[in-house]
Amino acid sequence: MSKFWSPFVKSLVPYVPGEQPKLTKLVKLNTNENPYGPSPKAIAAMQAELNDDLRLYPDPNGDRLKQAVATYYGVPTSQVFVGNGSDEVLAHAFHGLFQHGKPLLFPDISYSFYPVYCGLYGIQAEPIALDEQFQIRVEDYARPNGGIIFPNPNAPTGCLLALEAVERLLQANPDSVVLVDEAYIDFGGESAISLVSKYPNLLVTQTLSKSRSLAGLRVGLAVGQEDLIEALERIKNSFNSYPLDRIAIAGAAAAFEDRAYFEQTCAAVIESREQVVAGLQALGFEVLPSAANFIFARHPQRDAAGIAASLREQGVIVRHFKQERIAQFLRISIGSPEQNQALLDALAAL
Amino acid sequence: MSKFWSPFVKSLVPYVPGEQPKLTKLVKLNTNENPYGPSPKAIAAMQAELNDDLRLYPDPNGDRLKQAVATYYGVPTSQVFVGNGSDEVLAHAFHGLFQHGKPLLFPDISYSFYPVYCGLYGIQAEPIALDEQFQIRVEDYARPNGGIIFPNPNAPTGCLLALEAVERLLQANPDSVVLVDEAYIDFGGESAISLVSKYPNLLVTQTLSKSRSLAGLRVGLAVGQEDLIEALERIKNSFNSYPLDRIAIAGAAAAFEDRAYFEQTCAAVIESREQVVAGLQALGFEVLPSAANFIFARHPQRDAAGIAASLREQGVIVRHFKQERIAQFLRISIGSPEQNQALLDALAAL
Repeated sequence: MSKFWSPFVKSLVPYVPGEQPKLTKLVKLNTNENPYGPSPKAIAAMQAELNDDLRLYPDPNGDRLKQAVATYYGVPTSQVFVGNGSDEVLAHAFHGLFQHGKPLLFPDISYSFYPVYCGLYGIQAEPIALDEQFQIRVEDYARPNGGIIFPNPNAPTGCLLALEAVERLLQANPDSVVLVDEAYIDFGGESAISLVSKYPNLLVTQTLSKSRSLAGLRVGLAVGQEDLIEALERIKNSFNSYPLDRIAIAGAAAAFEDRAYFEQTCAAVIESREQVVAGLQALGFEVLPSAANFIFARHPQRDAAGIAASLREQGVIVRHFKQERIAQFLRISIGSPEQNQALLDALAAL
Repeated sequence: MSKFWSPFVKSLVPYVPGEQPKLTKLVKLNTNENPYGPSPKAIAAMQAELNDDLRLYPDPNGDRLKQAVATYYGVPTSQVFVGNGSDEVLAHAFHGLFQHGKPLLFPDISYSFYPVYCGLYGIQAEPIALDEQFQIRVEDYARPNGGIIFPNPNAPTGCLLALEAVERLLQANPDSVVLVDEAYIDFGGESAISLVSKYPNLLVTQTLSKSRSLAGLRVGLAVGQEDLIEALERIKNSFNSYPLDRIAIAGAAAAFEDRAYFEQTCAAVIESREQVVAGLQALGFEVLPSAANFIFARHPQRDAAGIAASLREQGVIVRHFKQERIAQFLRISIGSPEQNQALLDALAAL
């Protein structure tokens, strides 16, 4: 705290990301990274950018990437926004679309960055409790709001909200932006991007950090009607005109263009997930139904924090949240077959 | 304009960066990029990051880069902040250090992003006129303020404020943050980083886009006492925990470590600048004294917008600002010897 700080800085409670250990021998199942590397075509595209042209600014609009996303989803490029990770895209959306002097609604169990953004931009946060099965109940969002946001599938539960329920939410809130944060959609859900042309109040965000194996590159995107995209562009061009570097634009575009590799690695992760779920259930865990590249599980007799600590001693890191309602759960990323086996072996040895 | 936009979005006047043409044959002297490519060691360091580890998040703190900057300047890493271009670093500084309900002071002729940030964060902007020689007069900043910011050397004039004048400004404003934006300092100035240990109100920002030839990579930094750095870290961790990707961290660190290449390319740019100045003066131009990698010049008889348009027809792009006070000036980046000669030839042919 300091006389130099803008007053709101004192009360900020920054987001705490999952540990990024500098040791490399750990079985790292704590931040939902993809066990498979990025598309070789993405690596080659980045390679091609490593030359003297790095002395030049990138395309401020990232048109090559916007085009790749637009082609993939069959939308006009004018409906695509790109940024430095979906976290940056979300930040601009909170700033540009949720400051209406009314509360922002999101699930009580959800991405823990949402209340942080509210603190950053002076937005009142109103968490809405998930039901007892940890599902979003659309009816509970029928209250005055300045916007609605939720991950789909939800994090850290992995539970999917069906597209028809998303559509009911959009219909019930024609005057608010409904932001569907689809970081994990490619592992078992159907994107709401198909609804964009129908709903001017829908904004969908995605990331290349999960299904496209590029967490280390920092690229995210949003799709929505031009009116919403313009708000994001106005913020972006008032914040940092060149948020994406030359290498990121090229690598991310190539990743979107390589549909075969993407589909193959997603299928492998999904197959592994089902094996991990079966393995955990065999060990007595309850596992929430997951449409993501992680599972959310608890053991009826064992303390979650204790399990996490024991796993860590055995070189396996998973994520434990201290939030009361989920304090007995562990969020476990789906790793490679070897990593998953190491997890199950370590749990069996407890 | 839209009912979905946060109210302030309507009145934003976003920054307009210099053109990034997609044609490659142009002699591009409009955005102050370095004519020389990045250090071969930086390229090699980025190369080493192009592997499957891109599936993993980067170090959220960019410690490798902070260490390289700290070593270069002989400061503790706790006094270093890094971000996605100095534009992002500046944005966080405006947000976290300048929202005090009092006006922010900056020169009337200055980096045109400053008033944009003021619009983004609801800060009152109070431009202070440069004197008739386009110099900052420290005495004019002796008025109530919530902060002071200026580029040094100034942009787009290229004029340097001597370090003793910077120090007088710091002494006269002990209750305000004085942000010295040193994007161009390596081309002829002395960094105020040497004053950081003495002044808790000093924040210095720099970029790797100019003297380190990495505009395409998007890396910037700030140096200040821990108290100011903590404000920036709190904002950053409430906005995007991982602003720098793996490739950018590695490339930027290696660029800072390669002091010999840096010194050699800076010296070459400075030498070219003196030749361009002499060439322009021989053609009848008045040139402001420049300590940057660009010069700011006017012709007593010829209209600046007209010259810019004629140059463009000849394939040379320079920057012209419509702002009244400088509407008869052109800002011309220092290019390679061949580019500089092409500029002088084109001007001679007008």
